[in-house]
Amino acid sequence: MTRILYDLAGANDLRFSPHCWKSRMALKHKGLEFTTEPCTFLQVKEKVAFADWDKVPVLADGDTNIGDSWAIAEYLEETYPEAPSLFGGYDGKAFARFTNEYANTQLNPLIGGAIVYDIHDHIVDADRDYFKASREKTFGRTFDDLRAGREGFVTRFQAALAPVRNIVRAQLFLMGDAPSYADYAVFGALQWIRCSSDCAMMRPDDAVLAWRDRIMALHDGYASSVPAVAA
Amino acid sequence: MTRILYDLAGANDLRFSPHCWKSRMALKHKGLEFTTEPCTFLQVKEKVAFADWDKVPVLADGDTNIGDSWAIAEYLEETYPEAPSLFGGYDGKAFARFTNEYANTQLNPLIGGAIVYDIHDHIVDADRDYFKASREKTFGRTFDDLRAGREGFVTRFQAALAPVRNIVRAQLFLMGDAPSYADYAVFGALQWIRCSSDCAMMRPDDAVLAWRDRIMALHDGYASSVPAVAA
Repeated sequence: MTRILYDLAGANDLRFSPHCWKSRMALKHKGLEFTTEPCTFLQVKEKVAFADWDKVPVLADGDTNIGDSWAIAEYLEETYPEAPSLFGGYDGKAFARFTNEYANTQLNPLIGGAIVYDIHDHIVDADRDYFKASREKTFGRTFDDLRAGREGFVTRFQAALAPVRNIVRAQLFLMGDAPSYADYAVFGALQWIRCSSDCAMMRPDDAVLAWRDRIMALHDGYASSVPAVAA
Repeated sequence: MTRILYDLAGANDLRFSPHCWKSRMALKHKGLEFTTEPCTFLQVKEKVAFADWDKVPVLADGDTNIGDSWAIAEYLEETYPEAPSLFGGYDGKAFARFTNEYANTQLNPLIGGAIVYDIHDHIVDADRDYFKASREKTFGRTFDDLRAGREGFVTRFQAALAPVRNIVRAQLFLMGDAPSYADYAVFGALQWIRCSSDCAMMRPDDAVLAWRDRIMALHDGYASSVPAVAA
């Protein structure tokens, strides 16, 4: 059986999508073999149309196709119950649902504001006009204007990380001693930064950075083995 | 055995401390009888000195004294295991730890910015000079300046509630069908607003407000039975 994750791709095979990273880490956590199918921004719709979906990630697991990173996590947990659990249980799934919403709504918009023009520099040429126009529209600001306001985004991002910081300076992972999807949902955001920008969005002594590095070391250093822009 | 919760109090017996509300809801959830001992700001240190603590809440549970709302929740869960669980289990406790940090770091500073001068109007006369000076110092801004910026705090507060909103519009409570400390940790922030300000910090159709009302109806409408400034 083939298992393929359709994954956003930039130039030089950079894979920076925070949502795709959630699914990549979920698959590794479950110990499942998979390949990835790179899709540039302009290729996404056509490449995942087979799944009746229009965004990545999409997981094609044998004959089953699932779009949306949360749905993929739920699917993997249900379909491979004998593999290490992503959530732990009912309460842990509620926790992961919360950190996923937290990352999507509290972290990702600030990261986008701080690095969207860096992403622009690391995508394929053919994507650039579309990307710039669509992102300037989303933010309601030009790239130049966003660049001028980077410091504000970085400051707010560091403040928005406080819940994670306060927890991971006292314990290894958000759930305790072992990693879970609650971690991966947030980790996706940090890997997004690392794989598309050299902006130092966290201080070197930030406990969040040490936690990120613990996650990068998981599953034989999987997340550290991919092309990246920053260390 | 007596069980007393030392609780912050304003004028007209208003009880608005978000942290004290976490403990009040935890005690009700456990079905434990207790009385509260009101402390104005200037009374706190003297009244809780017996517990080797300098802030409220403090719980005096027979011969055991515990300060800090999180420590109180942990204590209640350990000491009364036969009563309804606050956390659910290991994973649920991790979840509650996160929503507690989220409320403390992402919600409370914005609420404070928006309503601190309203609180000033609802505390006892003797507390006012201390409160104004200490809070203007904390914020690094005068009350007049904060008042002029209220709209910004309210807008950011509504955005900061997105993780809660996205979850409670699909399910009753943050954990699912039943309330837990993960809810109470955030609810404390909303009860803080209601018991010290008439500022409409949420839109009337906000799903967060409907969730707050579900929590207010719990335990025979306990949280709705106290003096408040807003509905």
